[in-house]
Amino acid sequence: MNKLIKNGIVVTASDVQRADVAIENGVVTAVGQNLPDNGAEIVDADGCYVFPGGVDPHTHLDMPFGGTVTIDDFESGTIGFAAGGTTTIVDFCMHEKGKSLQHSLDIWHEKARGKAVIDYGFHMMVGDLRDEILDEIPKLVEEQGVSSFKVFMAYKNNLQAEDKTLFRVLQRAKAAKALVQVHAENGDVIDALVEDALASGNVEPVYHALTRPPEAEGEATARAIELARLAGAPIYIVHVTCREAVEAISRARRRGQPVFGETCEQYLVCDHTDYERPGFEGAKYVMSPPIREKSHQEALWNGLFNGDLMVLGSDQCSFNFKGQKELGKEDFSKIPNGGPTGEERMGILYEYGVVQGRIGLSKFVDLTSTTAAKLFGLFPKKGTIAVGSDADIVIWDPNVERTISAATQYLKCDYSLFEGFKVHGKARDVLLRGEYVFQNNEFVGAPGTGEYVPQKPFEYK
Amino acid sequence: MNKLIKNGIVVTASDVQRADVAIENGVVTAVGQNLPDNGAEIVDADGCYVFPGGVDPHTHLDMPFGGTVTIDDFESGTIGFAAGGTTTIVDFCMHEKGKSLQHSLDIWHEKARGKAVIDYGFHMMVGDLRDEILDEIPKLVEEQGVSSFKVFMAYKNNLQAEDKTLFRVLQRAKAAKALVQVHAENGDVIDALVEDALASGNVEPVYHALTRPPEAEGEATARAIELARLAGAPIYIVHVTCREAVEAISRARRRGQPVFGETCEQYLVCDHTDYERPGFEGAKYVMSPPIREKSHQEALWNGLFNGDLMVLGSDQCSFNFKGQKELGKEDFSKIPNGGPTGEERMGILYEYGVVQGRIGLSKFVDLTSTTAAKLFGLFPKKGTIAVGSDADIVIWDPNVERTISAATQYLKCDYSLFEGFKVHGKARDVLLRGEYVFQNNEFVGAPGTGEYVPQKPFEYK
Amino acid sequence: MNKLIKNGIVVTASDVQRADVAIENGVVTAVGQNLPDNGAEIVDADGCYVFPGGVDPHTHLDMPFGGTVTIDDFESGTIGFAAGGTTTIVDFCMHEKGKSLQHSLDIWHEKARGKAVIDYGFHMMVGDLRDEILDEIPKLVEEQGVSSFKVFMAYKNNLQAEDKTLFRVLQRAKAAKALVQVHAENGDVIDALVEDALASGNVEPVYHALTRPPEAEGEATARAIELARLAGAPIYIVHVTCREAVEAISRARRRGQPVFGETCEQYLVCDHTDYERPGFEGAKYVMSPPIREKSHQEALWNGLFNGDLMVLGSDQCSFNFKGQKELGKEDFSKIPNGGPTGEERMGILYEYGVVQGRIGLSKFVDLTSTTAAKLFGLFPKKGTIAVGSDADIVIWDPNVERTISAATQYLKCDYSLFEGFKVHGKARDVLLRGEYVFQNNEFVGAPGTGEYVPQKPFEYK
Amino acid sequence: MNKLIKNGIVVTASDVQRADVAIENGVVTAVGQNLPDNGAEIVDADGCYVFPGGVDPHTHLDMPFGGTVTIDDFESGTIGFAAGGTTTIVDFCMHEKGKSLQHSLDIWHEKARGKAVIDYGFHMMVGDLRDEILDEIPKLVEEQGVSSFKVFMAYKNNLQAEDKTLFRVLQRAKAAKALVQVHAENGDVIDALVEDALASGNVEPVYHALTRPPEAEGEATARAIELARLAGAPIYIVHVTCREAVEAISRARRRGQPVFGETCEQYLVCDHTDYERPGFEGAKYVMSPPIREKSHQEALWNGLFNGDLMVLGSDQCSFNFKGQKELGKEDFSKIPNGGPTGEERMGILYEYGVVQGRIGLSKFVDLTSTTAAKLFGLFPKKGTIAVGSDADIVIWDPNVERTISAATQYLKCDYSLFEGFKVHGKARDVLLRGEYVFQNNEFVGAPGTGEYVPQKPFEYK
Repeated sequence: MNKLIKNGIVVTASDVQRADVAIENGVVTAVGQNLPDNGAEIVDADGCYVFPGGVDPHTHLDMPFGGTVTIDDFESGTIGFAAGGTTTIVDFCMHEKGKSLQHSLDIWHEKARGKAVIDYGFHMMVGDLRDEILDEIPKLVEEQGVSSFKVFMAYKNNLQAEDKTLFRVLQRAKAAKALVQVHAENGDVIDALVEDALASGNVEPVYHALTRPPEAEGEATARAIELARLAGAPIYIVHVTCREAVEAISRARRRGQPVFGETCEQYLVCDHTDYERPGFEGAKYVMSPPIREKSHQEALWNGLFNGDLMVLGSDQCSFNFKGQKELGKEDFSKIPNGGPTGEERMGILYEYGVVQGRIGLSKFVDLTSTTAAKLFGLFPKKGTIAVGSDADIVIWDPNVERTISAATQYLKCDYSLFEGFKVHGKARDVLLRGEYVFQNNEFVGAPGTGEYVPQKPFEYK
Repeated sequence: MNKLIKNGIVVTASDVQRADVAIENGVVTAVGQNLPDNGAEIVDADGCYVFPGGVDPHTHLDMPFGGTVTIDDFESGTIGFAAGGTTTIVDFCMHEKGKSLQHSLDIWHEKARGKAVIDYGFHMMVGDLRDEILDEIPKLVEEQGVSSFKVFMAYKNNLQAEDKTLFRVLQRAKAAKALVQVHAENGDVIDALVEDALASGNVEPVYHALTRPPEAEGEATARAIELARLAGAPIYIVHVTCREAVEAISRARRRGQPVFGETCEQYLVCDHTDYERPGFEGAKYVMSPPIREKSHQEALWNGLFNGDLMVLGSDQCSFNFKGQKELGKEDFSKIPNGGPTGEERMGILYEYGVVQGRIGLSKFVDLTSTTAAKLFGLFPKKGTIAVGSDADIVIWDPNVERTISAATQYLKCDYSLFEGFKVHGKARDVLLRGEYVFQNNEFVGAPGTGEYVPQKPFEYK
Repeated sequence: MNKLIKNGIVVTASDVQRADVAIENGVVTAVGQNLPDNGAEIVDADGCYVFPGGVDPHTHLDMPFGGTVTIDDFESGTIGFAAGGTTTIVDFCMHEKGKSLQHSLDIWHEKARGKAVIDYGFHMMVGDLRDEILDEIPKLVEEQGVSSFKVFMAYKNNLQAEDKTLFRVLQRAKAAKALVQVHAENGDVIDALVEDALASGNVEPVYHALTRPPEAEGEATARAIELARLAGAPIYIVHVTCREAVEAISRARRRGQPVFGETCEQYLVCDHTDYERPGFEGAKYVMSPPIREKSHQEALWNGLFNGDLMVLGSDQCSFNFKGQKELGKEDFSKIPNGGPTGEERMGILYEYGVVQGRIGLSKFVDLTSTTAAKLFGLFPKKGTIAVGSDADIVIWDPNVERTISAATQYLKCDYSLFEGFKVHGKARDVLLRGEYVFQNNEFVGAPGTGEYVPQKPFEYK
Repeated sequence: MNKLIKNGIVVTASDVQRADVAIENGVVTAVGQNLPDNGAEIVDADGCYVFPGGVDPHTHLDMPFGGTVTIDDFESGTIGFAAGGTTTIVDFCMHEKGKSLQHSLDIWHEKARGKAVIDYGFHMMVGDLRDEILDEIPKLVEEQGVSSFKVFMAYKNNLQAEDKTLFRVLQRAKAAKALVQVHAENGDVIDALVEDALASGNVEPVYHALTRPPEAEGEATARAIELARLAGAPIYIVHVTCREAVEAISRARRRGQPVFGETCEQYLVCDHTDYERPGFEGAKYVMSPPIREKSHQEALWNGLFNGDLMVLGSDQCSFNFKGQKELGKEDFSKIPNGGPTGEERMGILYEYGVVQGRIGLSKFVDLTSTTAAKLFGLFPKKGTIAVGSDADIVIWDPNVERTISAATQYLKCDYSLFEGFKVHGKARDVLLRGEYVFQNNEFVGAPGTGEYVPQKPFEYK
């Protein structure tokens, strides 16, 4: 049914305006004063912000890792994301070594189909790099709507690619108008440090962090950037956590190199001391790269301020504390990596960014939605409130005060990284292509209403 | 009369959308598909971009300098600006030493009144800095709509302020929510170098450039930034021309300091060799800071790419070649500083930025309009196409090819810095608060229709 | 009487060798194994290092400041320096405004004559800069043995020079083969901050530090360096205290600019908390620039490691706590600036550098003696143990452990900045041109034996 | 026979002194004025400099590479080096994969024995890195006098080590007090670029340079440094050629990290245009890393000035143009890498450094002899003229003007990189442990007089 959102403050990456938003057939048809309703359902946004639905470019749903599978799949996961205001994700399809990329993509389509309550696209994580795989890259861009390819510089003897592989992917991606993403940590050093730690009997969760030092991230970030420079290709650095990596990005951007940095909300508000929580609690924070010493947070905020970091992803990759994280009870290196971060991505940035005065409303929209959509070929269908764009809209009530808790989250995961955090603001209503997914804080969507959104080829200026 | 702009591509700093724009009573009331005309005049923008009118935050009209007065005043000047797509300027009111700021502001209001064909605001250039002057700062912000104050670090024994003065202005401006702008060149060094050049009989225009080296700009930029850091105040660096200055800005922005850089189109496309033109031709390019060696252009484009430079101003300050520039025929230091740059500010950036692929359309709008409006308290009245904003709109025809020439410009000035440049794109129609200033490439405005736009206090995140 | 130093370890900036040192007529005539004594007095250095006598290029003896005069003059001061191993100083002659440089130089010669127990040269601190003064620069270099000129960027309305003055001095010094030294703090900002502090009733010693922030030093350092770059002149930054200043020096040295940095031992081992000592004790540490937060120490050590800092001076400028420092009891800005640092310059660096493993023996000699001699035209007469060099030699006993205390120092000053510091090593014997000043830890010298050492023109590569 | 060098100017890394040098039993026993001859042979050095014999820490003699062997072995090579003033080399022993380090060391001893006319030490180039190999490291340090270990980051599928290997070597070397050297180029990228070039039919010598861009060197340099930082180990970067690598070193040294940079004389004076010489001439300059665009030379000179580069090596690795370089006539990747650079290492630096005014005499000695000896555990036996040091001495006649030519060089190699260069200065006499190797410009040495010099464990401050 057509809708007319009235009385809200419409925010885009550029503008903050008091206006109505008219929605017909799932797209925005007008933003204006006193728009006629033409029989549309009226949505009263009085006292609220009207944001573009969030675009989370970094999620892992239904993903196998270390012998287990993330607790949240495309159903529970997307419900959780929607609850937090996100209406589009770009999930990582994991290429199965020895198989074609298409094979893995088909599997990922299968995982999502009939389950997702918000729209989704796919990045491709490339595993082995035979020539046939490289040859698939242009096909995926042109025919399958996949124009972003992720390469791992960590996880030695597993996902980790050689530099030559990364370089070849960069060359091919450039030719195919695709964007390469890197997980930038020096997996060789980490592998050695992990061996050393285990050999010394250092098995507790905190050693996860201690064996993945920020220098290893800074090094790999700088290296990936140099490879991209030599290939003449743009590059996107996922989940930047530390000063060293921000500096590497910054040096490149100073010389005009198209390098794009993403951070995640947990790196802005959690810190190393979380690994030192009593018992096995630290395992909840085990993810790669790890959360850093508090002093790194300033570097991340500065990066968001000056554009060295342009996107906020969640890196959602949730495993239950019970039964899953516990797999690493005797050996930190066996703790499944990741956390339930997708639901509160926007909530955390709203509180620590907007409410605490670090960023403005347009910057908030830019970081949580617009630039991700632009970089990953989803714009302007996604990522903004503009005429012709999908009516993916969040009515955000800034007056709510609430306490984050696993007990009340929609994600299935049995814990929250932000347990007990008091924050302001909440997604009251969430519309996907003009239809409610959440209405008045209640989930009213249905699995399978989320659709696949193919990416357009990379083009960003 | 109400208008409805149809069939164009509406561009904002965030969005590029095919949409109609409805205008009532001089403001935008809707952006939408197939908006009803309600009897409004239809403006057909088919094949054209619909940009927010440009905001030029750096102009000098009817300004005395070196014993003469700029050839363009608020009438010819604003007609020229409008011809190029600019609908708002912030002109520099020059504080007369020994008088109050209010006194000078009154004079500037007088200069503009009845003449301007586009809207205008005023920055205040502070001259002497007695305590009474400092005390006027909050008054101007609160009562007069002047929230930006410019201090000169050059022009020794004339406009140049001591560091203590600059520091005091920064402290006061911070308290009053004003933004301090600096002309950042080390006037002491320049004064010495000019003395040396003249003593050696080096009197030609090229010595203007040679006595104002980029290091002198880089030094002053760094110094101003440190003073702002110590005062805890934001700072805006006008007319950045060189690598050294960009690097100083960059270092500050890396640590999160609110420093904002402006460059001007002439620094992007002209270069030092222009000073070596035969005869006295080099005098046309005499401005401060001077145009630099070609290698600096890359630093400026990189700065625009990565945000170290956020605004494109023109620094319009026009003197005729005949009779005015010629005052310095025997002594470069007597050449009036400045050039006729306001009319082609947007045209040059469109060609060298958008057409040549360096920047996208939204970035073009951001640089020529939006961020200037935000920094100088004019947003969202100016600087965007959004509901409730002034209907200052440019219908930009990208299909036109044309050659820039003094013979065809609207500015009175008898030369153009860009004579003979072939460019694409032109402002076909220019609307100010919903009324045509230019229609179908013809000036249809009237002196005096431009209004004063008070700035709001500085608030930018 | 000729001497033969036997059994010691002779250390130069390059070498560490077990060798005898033969001294005839006050100069070193041989360094060798089993040198014949030829009737010379044997000095047994068994178990000891044989260092070149220290060269302290930064002292203020018998200097008026703020209505009082340093408690240590050329007699007590040089006895103290000798006690610590220093055999040559370059003291700052303070140019009296309105008078010629020669006039002030004559006064300083008068102050030293008949009193000094070690050799001395003079830097000239230029006050006012009339053309006649500039014209004196080459004369002092050529005829008076003064080839280093100091300019102040701080002490507004008093010693502080305009940038143009500094630039002119740099130009002249370059032409005359002299080296310009700068006291690099932004005096304008400091003046404003001091006014603000006093206006707020903040009068305690700690406000001395709080009103002279490291950014003010970093700024002025960067500025001085840019001016030197534009003048094509070398420059020497005295008493570097902080990260910001080291970074400015480092940036310049990266591009090959001849910039030389000096720090002082108190900045390496004291820190801001010393200003917070109970009562008025903080006044003992009042000097300019002030001692910094502890985190800056690492930047200084790193600078010594990598050559961004090349010289250790003392900036000796002693005032008694009783009666002198107390002048500022009600107003920190009236506390005479400076401390009794010349006696333990070498002792502190030996302990914190050599003993604690930060630097080697040759680096110790380089920092305390050799490079200062080279930069200030005293080499190879001073600054090394080499054939033909003055036999200024310290027999340093590394086996001594001692506690620094005002009670046991030779300086007259009634306190020590290093009271209670436990250190290893001590100058057992000190020879000036082959004659004992200290022998077996006893002062055996005589006032007036110290001679004036003219500097040669600057030439350092 | 004992010798007494008279009338020369003795230069060390610290001092320049007119003095005699007494030599007994192959060591320096005294440096002094008018030393008695005691029957020693008098060597008249009037008008000459007396330098410590050069220490070249980077040579490849009798080394197999790409199916051929360097034309110069320990006989012709060391004669050539001696002719240029070098009296000690540290040659690279190439570990044969699958064998022990000791096995390869034995082979290298065999290569040198009976042939060398100057002294030599060995670095070990580690090939494969089984645990047994790592375990050999402390043994070589303690028992074999090998305390420097080189790891390759280039030559993929051949010498190139994984990062983990490099990291393990760094850890072990640190524990064993050894110094790790790296050939820092990203071999993966180079491998891909070489494949691309050959696939495109680009086979000429210039493609050697074009497929090994400076970014690949800068990247690897930065990476090696980060690995060393994480291992807490010192690191030495061999043959630095470009701005990017110098900057990486500089960043590390700024934070106090013990990183030591070496460059070679060919990178200071040759440039990329040499690859574009007509015919196959460019092959003469094929070495890795390649010679760079001229603009990089300034970065190298600046690095020598400020200490980011501390050592001048030659990277001597000579192949005849005829018959050897020609192996790559149809394929640049088959051109044996390297050039005949050891003979003129000192001659080139003397001309372009000392004569042309870039560096002083002590710096010349430091770069060509002293610091290399200190870093590689040969000091003070080698690297200086001091009491107790080996009497390895060069009488350098600065008055000679000569033209470098293959026709007159002692190296066997059939070409010179510096053919036709006119330079000043020449090693007139060269003494090794007090005996002539060259006397009055004639070779008077004998194969086999050169001895092995074991390195002491690394210790440098």
